[in-house]
Amino acid sequence: MDAQITVQLKEPTKGLADCPGFSYSAVATDIRDNQSGQLDLALITSQTGKALSAAAVFTQNDVTAAPVDLSRMVLESSPEKVGGIVVNSGNANACTGAYGMPDAKEMSSCAQVSSGIGLPFFVCSTGRIGRRLPINKIIEGIASAAKSLDASSENAKATAQAILTSDTREKEASASFNYEGQTITVAGIAKGAGMIEPNMATMLAFLTTNVSASHACLQTALKTACDQSFNCLSIDGDMSTNDTVILLANGETSLNPESNSELLKAFQLAVLKVCETLAYKIVSDGEKITKVVTIEIIGSQSDADAEKVARAIGNSLLVKTAFYGSDPNWGRIVDAAGYAQVGLLIDRLDLHYDSTPALIAGKSIEDNLSAWKSIVEKDQFKITLNLNQGNGTFKLLTTDLSEAYVDFNKSE
Amino acid sequence: MDAQITVQLKEPTKGLADCPGFSYSAVATDIRDNQSGQLDLALITSQTGKALSAAAVFTQNDVTAAPVDLSRMVLESSPEKVGGIVVNSGNANACTGAYGMPDAKEMSSCAQVSSGIGLPFFVCSTGRIGRRLPINKIIEGIASAAKSLDASSENAKATAQAILTSDTREKEASASFNYEGQTITVAGIAKGAGMIEPNMATMLAFLTTNVSASHACLQTALKTACDQSFNCLSIDGDMSTNDTVILLANGETSLNPESNSELLKAFQLAVLKVCETLAYKIVSDGEKITKVVTIEIIGSQSDADAEKVARAIGNSLLVKTAFYGSDPNWGRIVDAAGYAQVGLLIDRLDLHYDSTPALIAGKSIEDNLSAWKSIVEKDQFKITLNLNQGNGTFKLLTTDLSEAYVDFNKSE
Repeated sequence: MDAQITVQLKEPTKGLADCPGFSYSAVATDIRDNQSGQLDLALITSQTGKALSAAAVFTQNDVTAAPVDLSRMVLESSPEKVGGIVVNSGNANACTGAYGMPDAKEMSSCAQVSSGIGLPFFVCSTGRIGRRLPINKIIEGIASAAKSLDASSENAKATAQAILTSDTREKEASASFNYEGQTITVAGIAKGAGMIEPNMATMLAFLTTNVSASHACLQTALKTACDQSFNCLSIDGDMSTNDTVILLANGETSLNPESNSELLKAFQLAVLKVCETLAYKIVSDGEKITKVVTIEIIGSQSDADAEKVARAIGNSLLVKTAFYGSDPNWGRIVDAAGYAQVGLLIDRLDLHYDSTPALIAGKSIEDNLSAWKSIVEKDQFKITLNLNQGNGTFKLLTTDLSEAYVDFNKSE
Repeated sequence: MDAQITVQLKEPTKGLADCPGFSYSAVATDIRDNQSGQLDLALITSQTGKALSAAAVFTQNDVTAAPVDLSRMVLESSPEKVGGIVVNSGNANACTGAYGMPDAKEMSSCAQVSSGIGLPFFVCSTGRIGRRLPINKIIEGIASAAKSLDASSENAKATAQAILTSDTREKEASASFNYEGQTITVAGIAKGAGMIEPNMATMLAFLTTNVSASHACLQTALKTACDQSFNCLSIDGDMSTNDTVILLANGETSLNPESNSELLKAFQLAVLKVCETLAYKIVSDGEKITKVVTIEIIGSQSDADAEKVARAIGNSLLVKTAFYGSDPNWGRIVDAAGYAQVGLLIDRLDLHYDSTPALIAGKSIEDNLSAWKSIVEKDQFKITLNLNQGNGTFKLLTTDLSEAYVDFNKSE
């Protein structure tokens, strides 16, 4: 009974092309006005044009871009009858005043008409804030993209590229499992947080799946997965004006995850695995980073306390610059943990770099100094801090902070 | 009636030497073990050896250094009978396990004995975390410093120098006013936040005054002044393990601020002016900064909301790097304001660089682009953001973030 279903990440992945029954295409419309020929506009729809069931998670920022407001309306009014997604990079259509919403609406309706699908489209935009969209170029681009919609690997790759801004590479993932002779797949693409916490370059992720699912089922799976992936790279509290994650289901298989608890679990796990993989790819492609560091807090009085401590450490400029310099500076880590103000007790703290102890019961194990040093010189490692006060835990993915980051961001 | 008393900052100031009735001295004890001859230990006492009345404000960090714990005990047990302050730089005596408190106590009792004053001393330490104090050097240093205690300008200057770590210059201030033929003075010295928010190099400030005042009177004046100065450079939420501000009153004048409401107001203003001046000197000497920026939030629904917005802006890496690059990037400022999540409305925002509007009712005034640019190129300027939702206000002093900062902090 309850034979466990094995959910596997596909490696290498073809991204969106791994999930059957969707079409996509991408074009270059010169939104950046630099004649670079860079792909900057894409469409994602069902292959047959039939209605998609959808879930979405949006930025918590008070300042939301017009496309976010529009996509929220689409989700509220028509969550199980969506036409697809239209997305552009190069301009965020944020802080664009009276132009913002009409332009976003025009993108949505143009995608609806050009694709011939006749159902509302989600709209996502990422890039520069505060400048009006070059709406004529975009409308031409949508019409052109609609003509070349197909399910090819080439179009899937082009779509993954078209959403990028300061990312250096496309981010794709997929996971699948078998159930009653059918293969369920969840595929996804993402664009990075230009910078990872405490800041706000836009993060976008689009997932597709071939189950038959209600909006509610998809929304639960997506929200849970986001909380355990994208929101653990500490972008959430500092979300951009445009952050959006969307999951679309086309019902190509008749399998409904809600019909069976094992199936549901496997589906949710597949969504989580894709989100986790995309999140890791986002962090490791953060602007001018040289290291990915996992901060795991255990033994706090609550998970919320653990999260506060993890974020205090992961956001500390002093900690991040020490990572960059390969300095195993546990003093900065403990100080940052202390200012999270969760009532930690220094003489209970156990701190490890990977599996090497740095502090036991608050006492530093100086004999391990050279071992710590060789760990923090690696391009990925883990710091585990046990507060020894309870059962709370939280895990955060973070990065170092380099001089190149400052140089890269000192002007737009 | 109520003739207003004029409180004036002294410029140029001689720091502690401006307030009569105190003695100080500083010596070089090679705490850093580098034979640099750098002054690193100092004493501050009353000139006659009589008991001092005291107030103090300490770090809110869960992880406190032993000298902070000891100084808290001194304040609790003997707030109106203090011998003075003994302070060292180069080693913070933080995270030093079982050695911490005995070493701090030894510093205090050694100062008490060597000075011949026979009253408990506050102890402050700043510098490297996690290494035991070189206690023998320090004890010899205290004995030597006690022999040269006097009220000279030279000793005052040397004391201001002895507390520095990564600061590039000493920080001194004084303010005074006349009342009934007597001159009341508040004098002070400080050492900087090596880095200004969101981090935690130690901040120390020591103030002296010649009023006759109860602990309660001093504590109210000091706490209020700290909240409006040091805590508005956004160090507080992220205080170091050692941050300490102390105010000592020697009763050289018989004037008691509590005897008269005008006198009290003038005294509190003098304490505030000295704290504000020291705070500004700390920010403008922040590690590798090139600009000091005042972020003023007005029109929020509460002061607390204004503070959240100011800190979100002032801590944003993207905003700070844009300041560094002289990029008048109002989009990054608005985005950071939005993720403070106080319910701001984009179409009510007015944003000014100095007095030049960048946004009015959320609409950007692009004609002013070159004017914004020339403002953010200056080494100090102000950003005012009006949410137009209420009467809340908060003002924060912040800085830019340079490549040199990262380089400076990548290892200790």
